[in-house]
Amino acid sequence: MRRTIDWADGAVEIIDQVALPREYRTLRLTTVGELVDAIRRLAVRGAPALGGAGALGVALAAFACDDADAVRADAERVAAARPTAVNLSWGVSRALTRLAEGPDAVLAEALAVLDEDERLNHEASARAAELILERCSRRPLRLLTHCNAGRLATVGWGTALGVVWHLHAAGHLESVLADETRPLLQGARLTAWELAEAGVPYRVLPDSAAAAAMARGMVDCVVVGADRIAANGDVANKIGTYGLAIAAARHRLPFVVVAPSSTVDPELASGDSVVIEERAAEEITTFSGLPVTPDGTKVFNPAFDVTPAELITAVVTEKGPMVP
Amino acid sequence: MRRTIDWADGAVEIIDQVALPREYRTLRLTTVGELVDAIRRLAVRGAPALGGAGALGVALAAFACDDADAVRADAERVAAARPTAVNLSWGVSRALTRLAEGPDAVLAEALAVLDEDERLNHEASARAAELILERCSRRPLRLLTHCNAGRLATVGWGTALGVVWHLHAAGHLESVLADETRPLLQGARLTAWELAEAGVPYRVLPDSAAAAAMARGMVDCVVVGADRIAANGDVANKIGTYGLAIAAARHRLPFVVVAPSSTVDPELASGDSVVIEERAAEEITTFSGLPVTPDGTKVFNPAFDVTPAELITAVVTEKGPMVP
Repeated sequence: MRRTIDWADGAVEIIDQVALPREYRTLRLTTVGELVDAIRRLAVRGAPALGGAGALGVALAAFACDDADAVRADAERVAAARPTAVNLSWGVSRALTRLAEGPDAVLAEALAVLDEDERLNHEASARAAELILERCSRRPLRLLTHCNAGRLATVGWGTALGVVWHLHAAGHLESVLADETRPLLQGARLTAWELAEAGVPYRVLPDSAAAAAMARGMVDCVVVGADRIAANGDVANKIGTYGLAIAAARHRLPFVVVAPSSTVDPELASGDSVVIEERAAEEITTFSGLPVTPDGTKVFNPAFDVTPAELITAVVTEKGPMVP
Repeated sequence: MRRTIDWADGAVEIIDQVALPREYRTLRLTTVGELVDAIRRLAVRGAPALGGAGALGVALAAFACDDADAVRADAERVAAARPTAVNLSWGVSRALTRLAEGPDAVLAEALAVLDEDERLNHEASARAAELILERCSRRPLRLLTHCNAGRLATVGWGTALGVVWHLHAAGHLESVLADETRPLLQGARLTAWELAEAGVPYRVLPDSAAAAAMARGMVDCVVVGADRIAANGDVANKIGTYGLAIAAARHRLPFVVVAPSSTVDPELASGDSVVIEERAAEEITTFSGLPVTPDGTKVFNPAFDVTPAELITAVVTEKGPMVP
């Protein structure tokens, strides 16, 4: 299966996630400017995939210019394209460690980041699947997920949806409820597309219906990815994750976060100090360019929220459940 | 100010809520069939407004036909147009009590239902505003509301937004956060329109961002309307109300429900047995006719959920806080 982001013939190639599910197409990004734009528009998104994007961005810069200071300045632009996912700056830093060895070495490091991402997500999601099978007695299982934490959010395989692939392969999965995930509908567009491609039974629901689904006994476990994990186990993830965790706690449902360990920010003591990206009003006030709200409507449109560790059953990385 | 629903020259006139906020227009409904269609399409919606629609529907039927059995059959069709709001069948029953006296008497009763609705919502929301001022010490207040419980959801004035009008007039309101309310965006379209018309500062947010707004200390109180209230105080209201109430409880924020007493169904012991309307998949899978999800996507699209009384600070009707 094609990677979400990869290096091909001197450029970065990505699956264009803005076009899905209506069109499956790839974009070829030949400059740092094009890559930064693609990251900002969410044509490539998802914390683990952004790690790869960060590393490949430094390779693009290194091949374009011999001046190390100019490459570092480009690397800064890539790292700053989105503020919340720690993986982006982590990927940039990884690739920069080999800048002195020349562009081929930078690229080799970036490709190592991509390889690792697939491997570590496969491992993290296998460990999370084991934990869920231990915690939930029902067979087959009914999972609920939010946003897209699938192969499209990573270089390949996926984190929360990685759990789905493992459980599905083992015959332990009944179905998935996929929150549509406003405002950009990553659940309705991307998660639904991945589940449909994989032949996994699923239903899409409004984010606000998740608590009702739990109350009706339709959910055995909630599984999500993460954009940044603090040292104490607090998790920044797509807006709506926090409310979902509160509802899961009320219904005593396991709430499991799956992510590669590069998502853990050891410098961050708790979720209180995560920088939360606020996105444009148009994401709320328009749909496909059509106005929805009255003219001049202001919005509150944070891209992420913080779920405190106390509401999380386990944060699982490739190393197993994290112990804060 | 024009009523949301009224009788004019032998027909029912409504403000077309599907066209708002892009276009403000009225629809003239001359047959029971047209009225039923308008109710199903949500061109007229909101539990209290549906009470008026039910009563006026019987008047339409009574003027159209002398046969009492035929009128009763039409009345049944109106009452069954949507299953959850108890006010619809309550309005139908009210108007039918005077069927034997002829169509003018039926119309007089229906017009009395309309008059009462405005008066009782004004009173219920005044009592709720008093209660909120007692419970919340901050001045001016910041309210969060869900869906549209304004004058568009009633014959006039409104329930949850009625509280906003009272507090705004008294100088005690800072601003309103209006959940956009997926899938049909009654908050982004209708609540935003009413707040803009009234000059009340507001912001629209994705439903899933409400918990984050509470966590950031942006909300003093949550105020919503109701579609059906059980004898024990459980409340059926727009999907998402339950999750909002769980989040408000975690943040120890007052969660206040405002409705005319016609919304209370004394026959209903608890919320467990409320019939919840499931709406069409297209509300989730398309937007303005454009597909959002992959072909063949199934959905979970309940129009309402049930919030247990234990999560509600007070259900306030025109008689004051309800004591289950």
